[in-house]
Amino acid sequence: MIVVMHPQATPEQIKNVEERLTELGFKTHPIYGQEKTVIGAIGDKKSLSSEALVTFPGVEKVVPILKPYKLVSKELKQTKTTVRVGTVEIGSDEIVVMAGPCAVESVEQLISSAHRVKEAGAKILRGGAFKPRTSPYAFQGLEEEGLKMLSQAKEETGLPIVTEVVDPRDVGLVAQYADIIQIGARNMQNFRLLQEAGMAGKPILLKRGLSSTIEEWLMAAEYIMDTGNEQVILCERGIRTFETATRNTLDLSAVPVVQENSHLPVLVDPSHGTGSWKYVASMAKAALAAGADGLLIEVHPEPSRALCDGPQSLNPDKFKDLMEKLKPIAQAVGKRI
Amino acid sequence: MIVVMHPQATPEQIKNVEERLTELGFKTHPIYGQEKTVIGAIGDKKSLSSEALVTFPGVEKVVPILKPYKLVSKELKQTKTTVRVGTVEIGSDEIVVMAGPCAVESVEQLISSAHRVKEAGAKILRGGAFKPRTSPYAFQGLEEEGLKMLSQAKEETGLPIVTEVVDPRDVGLVAQYADIIQIGARNMQNFRLLQEAGMAGKPILLKRGLSSTIEEWLMAAEYIMDTGNEQVILCERGIRTFETATRNTLDLSAVPVVQENSHLPVLVDPSHGTGSWKYVASMAKAALAAGADGLLIEVHPEPSRALCDGPQSLNPDKFKDLMEKLKPIAQAVGKRI
Amino acid sequence: MIVVMHPQATPEQIKNVEERLTELGFKTHPIYGQEKTVIGAIGDKKSLSSEALVTFPGVEKVVPILKPYKLVSKELKQTKTTVRVGTVEIGSDEIVVMAGPCAVESVEQLISSAHRVKEAGAKILRGGAFKPRTSPYAFQGLEEEGLKMLSQAKEETGLPIVTEVVDPRDVGLVAQYADIIQIGARNMQNFRLLQEAGMAGKPILLKRGLSSTIEEWLMAAEYIMDTGNEQVILCERGIRTFETATRNTLDLSAVPVVQENSHLPVLVDPSHGTGSWKYVASMAKAALAAGADGLLIEVHPEPSRALCDGPQSLNPDKFKDLMEKLKPIAQAVGKRI
Amino acid sequence: MIVVMHPQATPEQIKNVEERLTELGFKTHPIYGQEKTVIGAIGDKKSLSSEALVTFPGVEKVVPILKPYKLVSKELKQTKTTVRVGTVEIGSDEIVVMAGPCAVESVEQLISSAHRVKEAGAKILRGGAFKPRTSPYAFQGLEEEGLKMLSQAKEETGLPIVTEVVDPRDVGLVAQYADIIQIGARNMQNFRLLQEAGMAGKPILLKRGLSSTIEEWLMAAEYIMDTGNEQVILCERGIRTFETATRNTLDLSAVPVVQENSHLPVLVDPSHGTGSWKYVASMAKAALAAGADGLLIEVHPEPSRALCDGPQSLNPDKFKDLMEKLKPIAQAVGKRI
Repeated sequence: MIVVMHPQATPEQIKNVEERLTELGFKTHPIYGQEKTVIGAIGDKKSLSSEALVTFPGVEKVVPILKPYKLVSKELKQTKTTVRVGTVEIGSDEIVVMAGPCAVESVEQLISSAHRVKEAGAKILRGGAFKPRTSPYAFQGLEEEGLKMLSQAKEETGLPIVTEVVDPRDVGLVAQYADIIQIGARNMQNFRLLQEAGMAGKPILLKRGLSSTIEEWLMAAEYIMDTGNEQVILCERGIRTFETATRNTLDLSAVPVVQENSHLPVLVDPSHGTGSWKYVASMAKAALAAGADGLLIEVHPEPSRALCDGPQSLNPDKFKDLMEKLKPIAQAVGKRI
Repeated sequence: MIVVMHPQATPEQIKNVEERLTELGFKTHPIYGQEKTVIGAIGDKKSLSSEALVTFPGVEKVVPILKPYKLVSKELKQTKTTVRVGTVEIGSDEIVVMAGPCAVESVEQLISSAHRVKEAGAKILRGGAFKPRTSPYAFQGLEEEGLKMLSQAKEETGLPIVTEVVDPRDVGLVAQYADIIQIGARNMQNFRLLQEAGMAGKPILLKRGLSSTIEEWLMAAEYIMDTGNEQVILCERGIRTFETATRNTLDLSAVPVVQENSHLPVLVDPSHGTGSWKYVASMAKAALAAGADGLLIEVHPEPSRALCDGPQSLNPDKFKDLMEKLKPIAQAVGKRI
Repeated sequence: MIVVMHPQATPEQIKNVEERLTELGFKTHPIYGQEKTVIGAIGDKKSLSSEALVTFPGVEKVVPILKPYKLVSKELKQTKTTVRVGTVEIGSDEIVVMAGPCAVESVEQLISSAHRVKEAGAKILRGGAFKPRTSPYAFQGLEEEGLKMLSQAKEETGLPIVTEVVDPRDVGLVAQYADIIQIGARNMQNFRLLQEAGMAGKPILLKRGLSSTIEEWLMAAEYIMDTGNEQVILCERGIRTFETATRNTLDLSAVPVVQENSHLPVLVDPSHGTGSWKYVASMAKAALAAGADGLLIEVHPEPSRALCDGPQSLNPDKFKDLMEKLKPIAQAVGKRI
Repeated sequence: MIVVMHPQATPEQIKNVEERLTELGFKTHPIYGQEKTVIGAIGDKKSLSSEALVTFPGVEKVVPILKPYKLVSKELKQTKTTVRVGTVEIGSDEIVVMAGPCAVESVEQLISSAHRVKEAGAKILRGGAFKPRTSPYAFQGLEEEGLKMLSQAKEETGLPIVTEVVDPRDVGLVAQYADIIQIGARNMQNFRLLQEAGMAGKPILLKRGLSSTIEEWLMAAEYIMDTGNEQVILCERGIRTFETATRNTLDLSAVPVVQENSHLPVLVDPSHGTGSWKYVASMAKAALAAGADGLLIEVHPEPSRALCDGPQSLNPDKFKDLMEKLKPIAQAVGKRI
């Protein structure tokens, strides 16, 4: 930690800060510049209130030096983590595409989707049984009935299931059916849900929050890993910006930033990232070229009748076409799909 | 709802859209312009998938006309809602200031804070027993022990209590102690928590999410009101923008925007809104001048030793000074404090 | 400057960085922590490429310690700057309101506006002769003819004139007519225009850019002061965020932040800040309560027929009413209007 | 245009709006819904003040239906525009990479860069002679001397030149040397510069503003095309968001959005888009996969000594390596490089 003092800070104020740092267990190294004094503070003590030093008289700012995360960090573990689900290995040279409808609506809709996405090359089936919706009047999901349909689809197709949980009380139930538990963007900082889901012992797909920095996202992953669960898959799905031509702004640079700082695999969701099926193919290709380990794509047998996120869903034919086009891109970055 | 067709839309595409709208229960009113055709669609049917019309061939965009919220809307209820807590009435001509530490840390810290904020004129005591923290290694709150301390502080000072709940499973427990249940910014779209808290029958303080539009915030309030709970207090606490000189950007224009669209009272939290005690007084004054019904302010007996949010906490002397300065502002807008 | 080294940085990499710092004229102070080494670098040399140190092998990041601005800084000049225009002093205990139409449209429109805003208590007349418009098909201003009308309005009412310049080639012309030269938000980083306007020797009203940090805004003011012109007035006018209920998000916390870091006076423009006349009064009051030195308000004799920014313009009656309501607010913060 | 009336709007208010619309040259089509009346307004009249209708009593909002741009629009011209510079055709099946240093610093630096980027496959040489810098104390460019060096580099290598202009007064000078005139992000809404540059008759590279919507960007291109210049090349270079891990957030979805709405070619600048050389390769690959027509990449012989943007510059070896890796990506999307 570096404490930067005001140009007008008095020697006594500097002394007070040094004393407080010592009291907190740090060793101090003051550097007296021409305009300002800065105090380097060394120590491995996790100080709960070191940020509050900024309220000391004469302090201009406090600059942290160490990263706030440990377990997710590449500094701790240099080799890449892979998450195995059945025969699928996420984070390997094989691009993993998870596809299916936004919400489970009926057995027919789901099974039909499952067969079509499997034929096209998807490795995991997605589908929401619990839906976090902006409006209380919107379709909220089929809940346990939806989970059962997912289970049935898995039986018929052999595709493992990824599905979202929105309430800590449902984690046990969802974990019975899901192969991967999804934490949605709106719940990225629902810390109780992170902890409960982490303890379920299943792989977790952690979506980035709409307005979360990459650091906050990694801190959310840290919450999960702190429960002892190392099977965390990150998923970039667009952040909120001023641009309105797309539903969100898909931040593909998050892929190399995550890969520089963490050992966890990272997927991209171009459906939520753009909000329009027209842009999904371009951004799916871009995501693979940027180095993503996989994709999450919404596919609906009849998007114009979808109860949720129809505008951003591909129909099965368009999805199949996209999967074909992804192959040479995967190859171009030394992977396969 | 207005459906705007592409300039190259064919008569058949227009017909298909009209048929689908009719099927969904709307009456259609096409308007044929020189460049484009638009179709007005009238109907009170809550169509679950009308947004998906944008996927029809030939459709350029779908423009909703009706507001998505009802219960919170000023169109439904023109008179302002006031929320009564003991002898305090939030939403009246009396400015209500809620003050206290970010987190409950100990009996001494809390009781000392409570006495000092009461003397200065605060009407409600705030303090967190459950803390949503970005880092799993940060102080997470004293939980039930903290709630008991809040209860003790209430007994000693007579101040009603506002405190946060972060997990649907804790709502019952928190409701036993709290006079007002707070839903924090990170949980604004934790819909299960909104519903569970709504059903507890206590007034709810609903903070705006870091990246939530005002419309989404009102939709979150709609979730609570949809449980039958009409005692909702909104609280603006800053949104996330590119500016880094302040922790968040306090969006004071949210106050008149809310007041134009909703009957619910609205408070402002200048502590979280700025992230620095230096700016709290200016923004507290500005909030009252903008028309806010009250304030939420962090006060700590010794901010430099606070376990949470020290940098943005006022010490009791500064808080007292601020309360004095707020009086003429309140008067200037026809209120009292 | 602090150079933070990677945890895996080698002694040689650290040595290389120290050598480069020495070569650039800095004295180095390495601090060896348990995880990382940081190197403090002291020196008043303005190093043109010190940021490029981040490309050295083993460097994690470079943290600047000194503020990038000097002339605008409160560290350099602790007393507040006041800018005198005729008998008006901006930055004093007297709130200065600048009002008038967005664009000069005709002599009648302008003179009528001028009389009405003067009667209501405005001290400066605003009006645009050169208009930067998003569309090439929108009204671009009356140019020199408009400047002449402003001059005529000044003669009739005695009100000094503030008007915008958008092209370095027009600075001489505008300076002949204007008492204060305005640099608009879109031109805040049009550095050639800043320099040319600075050299005209007239007071400059510098609006904050739509997506400019406060630091960048102060750097733009530094460009003007660097020409030798000390008469700079800052004006917050809203920043671009994800919120769409208002045209921009008025960042009132910029007022205390500027006042903490700079000696320059700061105004607020609630018309552009909100984009809707309905919210102007609330935010004008809030701006004064936050400590602003004055206001910039759009007033049009008939907003519904304005050629520019009608939706955010007050009519003269509403403006008069607002001016009355501002009086007690000004008084409440120890000022007059 | 659609005018949405308030639920409480009176029949007279509706009549007033219809009369005003008729006066402005529109035909009106009212639709009476159960809650609200909306008025469709048809007409090709460019009404200068139609947005001001929102100030009429009883009006809730005004929804424009037609796009604000014409000349840049795909509705006007369905075939893609290609811009020819020497033997290079931008917007064709051949990916065009423009590379070189941020700023021209010396003949040696520039010529060395030029040779190296040419060898690696770049088709155009970039380099700034006029630099818009946040700080007045930063290196501002070599101006005409820099242009002459660019000219010399062109002679030696045969590479056409793209270089920035920042002042309308320099357009003539820059046009003498440049094959493509660049308008930088900070000047995207410097409308006078757009017009002056447009009239120079050279191809224009128009970078997207830091906080500009795609629509505003296209409107800026419309300004250029309105001067009669059809040779406009768009360039996405990152927008400003809350994320600080990258200098800007590269909005790659702008590529398909532009391609859906406009016939103009679009490049991507991953150097400014990320601000760090570490992320340039990933985002360059992603840009091509997303469908970009080319790239703008900063290459410096010795980034750690660059006077400008060193942190985001590739050295020639890394650039060469990247160009190799781009080949299979280009092929994968049916192009060549």
